[in-house]
Amino acid sequence: MFDIALIGAGRIGRIHAANVAAEQRLRLRYVVDPMAAAAREVADGAGADVATLDAALADPAVKGVIVASATDTHLDYASRAIAAGKGVFCEKPIDLDLARARSAAGALGGADVPLLLGFNRRFDPHFRALEQRLRGGSMGALETLHIISHDPAPPPIDYVRVSGGLFKDMAIHDFDMARWLLGEEPTQVYAAASCLVDPAIGGGGDVDTARIFLRTASGKLCVISNSRRSGYGYDQRIEAFCAAGLVRADNVRETTVEAWRAAGAAADPLQNFFLDRYAAAYRAEMAHFADMLAGAAAPGVGYADGIAALALAEAAGRSAAEGAVVTL
Amino acid sequence: MFDIALIGAGRIGRIHAANVAAEQRLRLRYVVDPMAAAAREVADGAGADVATLDAALADPAVKGVIVASATDTHLDYASRAIAAGKGVFCEKPIDLDLARARSAAGALGGADVPLLLGFNRRFDPHFRALEQRLRGGSMGALETLHIISHDPAPPPIDYVRVSGGLFKDMAIHDFDMARWLLGEEPTQVYAAASCLVDPAIGGGGDVDTARIFLRTASGKLCVISNSRRSGYGYDQRIEAFCAAGLVRADNVRETTVEAWRAAGAAADPLQNFFLDRYAAAYRAEMAHFADMLAGAAAPGVGYADGIAALALAEAAGRSAAEGAVVTL
Amino acid sequence: MFDIALIGAGRIGRIHAANVAAEQRLRLRYVVDPMAAAAREVADGAGADVATLDAALADPAVKGVIVASATDTHLDYASRAIAAGKGVFCEKPIDLDLARARSAAGALGGADVPLLLGFNRRFDPHFRALEQRLRGGSMGALETLHIISHDPAPPPIDYVRVSGGLFKDMAIHDFDMARWLLGEEPTQVYAAASCLVDPAIGGGGDVDTARIFLRTASGKLCVISNSRRSGYGYDQRIEAFCAAGLVRADNVRETTVEAWRAAGAAADPLQNFFLDRYAAAYRAEMAHFADMLAGAAAPGVGYADGIAALALAEAAGRSAAEGAVVTL
Amino acid sequence: MFDIALIGAGRIGRIHAANVAAEQRLRLRYVVDPMAAAAREVADGAGADVATLDAALADPAVKGVIVASATDTHLDYASRAIAAGKGVFCEKPIDLDLARARSAAGALGGADVPLLLGFNRRFDPHFRALEQRLRGGSMGALETLHIISHDPAPPPIDYVRVSGGLFKDMAIHDFDMARWLLGEEPTQVYAAASCLVDPAIGGGGDVDTARIFLRTASGKLCVISNSRRSGYGYDQRIEAFCAAGLVRADNVRETTVEAWRAAGAAADPLQNFFLDRYAAAYRAEMAHFADMLAGAAAPGVGYADGIAALALAEAAGRSAAEGAVVTL
Repeated sequence: MFDIALIGAGRIGRIHAANVAAEQRLRLRYVVDPMAAAAREVADGAGADVATLDAALADPAVKGVIVASATDTHLDYASRAIAAGKGVFCEKPIDLDLARARSAAGALGGADVPLLLGFNRRFDPHFRALEQRLRGGSMGALETLHIISHDPAPPPIDYVRVSGGLFKDMAIHDFDMARWLLGEEPTQVYAAASCLVDPAIGGGGDVDTARIFLRTASGKLCVISNSRRSGYGYDQRIEAFCAAGLVRADNVRETTVEAWRAAGAAADPLQNFFLDRYAAAYRAEMAHFADMLAGAAAPGVGYADGIAALALAEAAGRSAAEGAVVTL
Repeated sequence: MFDIALIGAGRIGRIHAANVAAEQRLRLRYVVDPMAAAAREVADGAGADVATLDAALADPAVKGVIVASATDTHLDYASRAIAAGKGVFCEKPIDLDLARARSAAGALGGADVPLLLGFNRRFDPHFRALEQRLRGGSMGALETLHIISHDPAPPPIDYVRVSGGLFKDMAIHDFDMARWLLGEEPTQVYAAASCLVDPAIGGGGDVDTARIFLRTASGKLCVISNSRRSGYGYDQRIEAFCAAGLVRADNVRETTVEAWRAAGAAADPLQNFFLDRYAAAYRAEMAHFADMLAGAAAPGVGYADGIAALALAEAAGRSAAEGAVVTL
Repeated sequence: MFDIALIGAGRIGRIHAANVAAEQRLRLRYVVDPMAAAAREVADGAGADVATLDAALADPAVKGVIVASATDTHLDYASRAIAAGKGVFCEKPIDLDLARARSAAGALGGADVPLLLGFNRRFDPHFRALEQRLRGGSMGALETLHIISHDPAPPPIDYVRVSGGLFKDMAIHDFDMARWLLGEEPTQVYAAASCLVDPAIGGGGDVDTARIFLRTASGKLCVISNSRRSGYGYDQRIEAFCAAGLVRADNVRETTVEAWRAAGAAADPLQNFFLDRYAAAYRAEMAHFADMLAGAAAPGVGYADGIAALALAEAAGRSAAEGAVVTL
Repeated sequence: MFDIALIGAGRIGRIHAANVAAEQRLRLRYVVDPMAAAAREVADGAGADVATLDAALADPAVKGVIVASATDTHLDYASRAIAAGKGVFCEKPIDLDLARARSAAGALGGADVPLLLGFNRRFDPHFRALEQRLRGGSMGALETLHIISHDPAPPPIDYVRVSGGLFKDMAIHDFDMARWLLGEEPTQVYAAASCLVDPAIGGGGDVDTARIFLRTASGKLCVISNSRRSGYGYDQRIEAFCAAGLVRADNVRETTVEAWRAAGAAADPLQNFFLDRYAAAYRAEMAHFADMLAGAAAPGVGYADGIAALALAEAAGRSAAEGAVVTL
């Protein structure tokens, strides 16, 4: 059993704490958070101690550190944990600034460093099943890819302002998904974006609606569809068009219940909240972290993946601003 | 091209007239109906003549006769057409009285008589595809069968009173479907019925809601579900449970359009009217009649099938009345 | 937090142990099982102690007892726990013998006794959503009900022999579901059953395929469909036909992935194992037990429900054996 | 009843001849085609005469002319029919050359000229139902639009060579659909295209796979997905993302039959052939032409629509060739 220190006792930190508790090979030992009450609450619920980061890193029994703090601390905390010889599970994004993220590559991106970057959707059972079908070969070569990722409703405008913008905050997941499924790096990016949902978002210089196009060197095409507001729940779909047909992953509904009436059949709503929709993904991600600490698996998604997704987000932002295709 | 005489210029007669017109091998020559205006209208629309039954049967150019008149005339008109050497396409039911229908078997049921009985659902492309899957063998032996057949809304009470009752008027289609798909005669019938939809139906001694159970000698089980009112359209589904899995035919919607909203996804309604739902079946049935007249096909469903379905309807009525299982 | 004693460290006992661990208001204190190694393993995993039943019942800190032992011990253990003043969560069936179960009603069925009977499907989120739609009233009165409950594949023949037979072992869940949803007691039962799946099951005097009809005093009709083998996974569906339309709960798939090819679209399989399909139901059931112990809820399903379902199972068995309708 | 002259007795001409026959208000009077045998066959099947174009246009009884000849004759024949005072139903595209098409606008595009351009998909009942939902207003403003239009398999390479290329031959339908649904003209076009299906298509300077972006002045975004080969049938879907939710039209299957097995559920294939998939659209289009001739309807899609779609196709081709966004 591996002792774990958790940095960050906010919403996503609590999810990870619960998944550490449910994972037999892991035990939560320390919770680190400047908000003492939050740290205490999470620690008490798990039989762990509140500690400073220095104290947690100094304990040789701690084998893994989960970085779930504010985005602008990710690089610093992950670097310190790596330096202390701990396995690291760092939430996405690695940073909002591409140059800064790249400059930390020496410390964080070494091949021998077990750093897992929290692109949780790679661990979603639906998308994973899709990926396995693609890899299985029976569908022929992947040619084009559609990713739909629409939020149910916009986050608070205060969050939007510090989020890094739609491309770095929201599309970043889809850039990672695209890279994972395409199996090849995009070489061209074109992004068209509008502010159609909430003028306040546009007022802050951001967009709320985008379509992003990626092309790889071999000519594979990918379209990413993003919106801050769907009006019908959390729309998370993928369609992979292959030489021998189509593989698709559809949305997940709250229940299978339908009511049929004269006006037609009405199905229950989509799973609406990302923590519900991706609950299984977060659990599987934690099991993968345990595998990593046990030496049974290399990180399924690492530092270089974070850099690559961030580079695509920057390119998309530039393309949308300039109205032109960006070549990487 | 075969000349055709149509007896009956009512709703179903007009469907057949249109399908004769669309079938290149057939030409409507005569329309027979005591309602002169109706006969005239159908004849004019098709370039045919109005005639008496005797005159139509006396024309040697007439090769086929379609009997689409009132139910109590089916046996008489079909017998006369057969006696005149015409091929016959007779609407269901063959009669409402089992003994009378059986007594006509000598005249009508001979193996060499090309009589097609209008169990149109056997020609529906969905049910036909299901049947071909069963016959194809890849699903293993059929073990149990569910047939759902619910009308959108009850017919006028005046129609119900002369209809012969739910078992002979409505379930008769399902008895034929069960016999066709089971590939084996039922030996036991149990029917449970209630009047839940409209007390006026119960007041006339009929029922509006039924579940019917059939068992064959080899132990295959079948459940038929009937209702005079679904509230959500014309519910016509079949599930065939086989040794290697399930084959099912689902309902047909008016369009594939769905609207997704916060409350869930709403699909367009079912095809609601039996003449729409089974339009392709009626066309295919007429093409089959042309095949018969050309000597290219034996009747896909004949007089003996009408007798057998009627016998099941009588047994079901008896079972429901007595609350007991009826052995055939 | 309530201390819990678990009797039975087998498959279902382990499920309950995990759900006790995940439920914040409960703590597993004792594990009781004559198989010492199994008891030890479950206890160690939960930080609990192995104990005898007497010792566990003697501890006043224990507020709840979970009876997950062999069926023929349910009545005895539940009675002893009740006598010791503990809240009881007893696995189904209450017993295989209706007379014996009824004779224990004095000890177990009192209105003030907090006994929860483990009909887990009432806690399934899909069926619960369906039930709420029915209760909500917008669908009008429930008229007829279809329950499909087919296992993926037959259990080992040794299990079948001691199971009490298809009606008491398998259909018992569906009888409870029917009573819950109909909101009215069935007064007539007819069961048709065959041995179509495995002759060894028939050789032991049991059946593997059944269709069961229920009718209530007001004329509501219910059909239950049971099979020991579907060939396509765990088929668990409900259709409730109401005055204003249909409410249905469909099967749950492993993932939403589909592959579209020239031959059509292929969806991923159904959730195949009952512990997966009903995992959420088992969790919700344990939360309900915690509510009961906290005095916040009366048992959602109790002793009298167990008796009623068992009575229907006996009646169905009699009907199938005699080939006749049984009136209750 | 209006007499009709049909120019062109090829595949699409025969479809129109059959729909004229089925439309009570129209009668096929002349068939014009340099291939005498083809003209004769179509004429005989409909009781019409073979004629030269001049003779057909000279007959004052002819009220409507259907231009279903080779693409490079569309402008000439349509102009001559208009000059002769006939109502015209002209197949798409109006021409392959934008400048030439525009130069004919004076003769063909006048507001008082009843010319119907054959963008048949506007008459498809599924897409029409979707359009009515959008116009109905209950979904809120349309914001973004996805159109998927993938052929089952590439046409013969000889056809591809004279087709005008993917954008003018295939995407032209989707440009018209986009304009119709967006209710606003696109002002920017970006097209990314590859040759992934068949190198012979690329060898001829064409592409077989494309993703096209459109943006309107108000910021609405549209993505069109085209492929010459799906591998799974004729994929024709539309998703319209609105302020209040999503309206979508899905593919049409050959039948509703599904086979459920251990590996999952397999549905019957998509309707694979465009003449099957759009059979109802072609019929509705002909009924609309009859409405036009009767003065009961203005053309639902006219010459200016053909020009606009062709301009988008040219812009898309330029964008793909230059790898840059094209502003209209």
